Amino acid sequence: MYNIGIDLGGTNIVASVVNEDYRILGTGKTPTSTPRSADEIFDDIAAMCREAMDKAGVTINDISSIGMGTPGTVNGEGVIEFANNLGFNNVPARDMLKERLGDLPVFIANDANCAALGEAYAGCGNGSKNFVAVTLGTGVGSGIIVDGKIVTGVNFAGGECGHMVIMVDGEACTCGRRGCWEAYASATALIRQTKEAMEKYPDSVMHELAKAEGKVSGRTAFDAMRKGDIAGIEVVDNYIKYVACGLIDIVNALQPEIICVGGGICNEGDTLMTPLKRFVQAERYSIHSKIQTKIMKAELGNDAGVIGAALLGSIQ
Amino acid sequence: MYNIGIDLGGTNIVASVVNEDYRILGTGKTPTSTPRSADEIFDDIAAMCREAMDKAGVTINDISSIGMGTPGTVNGEGVIEFANNLGFNNVPARDMLKERLGDLPVFIANDANCAALGEAYAGCGNGSKNFVAVTLGTGVGSGIIVDGKIVTGVNFAGGECGHMVIMVDGEACTCGRRGCWEAYASATALIRQTKEAMEKYPDSVMHELAKAEGKVSGRTAFDAMRKGDIAGIEVVDNYIKYVACGLIDIVNALQPEIICVGGGICNEGDTLMTPLKRFVQAERYSIHSKIQTKIMKAELGNDAGVIGAALLGSIQ
Repeated sequence: MYNIGIDLGGTNIVASVVNEDYRILGTGKTPTSTPRSADEIFDDIAAMCREAMDKAGVTINDISSIGMGTPGTVNGEGVIEFANNLGFNNVPARDMLKERLGDLPVFIANDANCAALGEAYAGCGNGSKNFVAVTLGTGVGSGIIVDGKIVTGVNFAGGECGHMVIMVDGEACTCGRRGCWEAYASATALIRQTKEAMEKYPDSVMHELAKAEGKVSGRTAFDAMRKGDIAGIEVVDNYIKYVACGLIDIVNALQPEIICVGGGICNEGDTLMTPLKRFVQAERYSIHSKIQTKIMKAELGNDAGVIGAALLGSIQ
Repeated sequence: MYNIGIDLGGTNIVASVVNEDYRILGTGKTPTSTPRSADEIFDDIAAMCREAMDKAGVTINDISSIGMGTPGTVNGEGVIEFANNLGFNNVPARDMLKERLGDLPVFIANDANCAALGEAYAGCGNGSKNFVAVTLGTGVGSGIIVDGKIVTGVNFAGGECGHMVIMVDGEACTCGRRGCWEAYASATALIRQTKEAMEKYPDSVMHELAKAEGKVSGRTAFDAMRKGDIAGIEVVDNYIKYVACGLIDIVNALQPEIICVGGGICNEGDTLMTPLKRFVQAERYSIHSKIQTKIMKAELGNDAGVIGAALLGSIQ
């Protein structure tokens, strides 16, 4: 038997047929094209599920369950209570999928939590049951797995480690608080920090690099650092310190087996991961413990979401 | 049947017989008198267990299991790997209790985690399965319960929310980091903040209050605030903001059913709890959720530790 995993994003709808070894056998993908009505979006989701089944060479009778990851908060009845970037308010996602695909077991969860589940079972976690995934992207996404299950919290809004404050009265965050980890450790924050350093250092090589690329990106400061640029080194050192701060907070609170770090910034590889691991080792509270949380790079990339969504039916 | 709960602290050893309704039927208590050898301390622990049984009118044959809370980290074999304020290094606590009290099931856990378990099941949690307890004392202790079980983490050092950083490069913490929540929200931190304000405001009524009490305490600023003292109001406002910051971080990460706040500062009652709840309500990420984490005052006081320890055998 197979499961279908759906990753409903603000940009794309992706649906995949996933087998029992967590392998993707076929995928359908189409732009989400917001703003549109939920009905239109769910028609496309169902079409992508059918396309995935066609490509995988299976029929709906071969499918055990359907899982979907979505932005926003999803309640226990499979209703998307609120998803800002989809314009969704109380959308009965589970029922809408059943109407379109038949009376299969359907499970809906937050997309960051699905991605965490995918990495924990099928990615760098390799089956880990106590696992936290952190994604350094536009924001800082995260999902917490305890005893093999997503920590959804009482209202299915759990796992937002990006919105833990690391600097009281610090930078404004999109969530309304000040000083959130996300406001210091996201790619967006890194770009802001790079721009601030460029103003401070008019002679920095970052000005040339940004001109050549046509914009300031998450790579600008890292590339400048590799050229020995003082401003670039300062930006990268501070950024890594901020990322490490939140990782150590998670270690101290939860002591998971693994914290997996993903997102575009991770393409920097050891340049990012080696100092991150060093910070965590130096500052974790559990300095005397023989067993320590491992900090690992995410392995599944964008596939983590659909694989995790496909797994939702297996872990209930 | 009954369970024995033991609370091994840096100051006192407390052992109680607890019934199935989480009620304490008899207690033995003696000073820990550190530094002493682990053998001497465990002889006293066993003696306190016997005293508790005598007072409760039961014998060892009526006891189902023994649970003990201890400072420091305890591994899965019931060995206290490290407990700074007891001078313990790799003390085989489970075996030492069995040697002295007979071959009963014995469970050992961190003391803050035991207190959280006690409050969750028998205190303000009233059986809550997703619960975080925070104690504002000399430090900021905490314990996390998910799905009715303590989140011990991979190395049994989990639940140290007091050592999450809320201010990068902030006040030095006893753990070696800078800016930990504990360095801003503990009673120790409040006293430091009060002393700093007294230096800044030589006319503050806090000088008189401290002189009358013979010292600056956790009450000084609260008492001054009630007299309309500007400096006192400033200290209390900032302190409550710091406490709220960490509580909101916990809400955003875990969305527990309840966060319970305990420790001496909680004797301030609504003066503390009302603004704390207001901060959490205004800043939580889950602003659109119908169900929200409740912030409650701890109910069991010092009994939370022994009751939680006694429960360890029931939740395995």
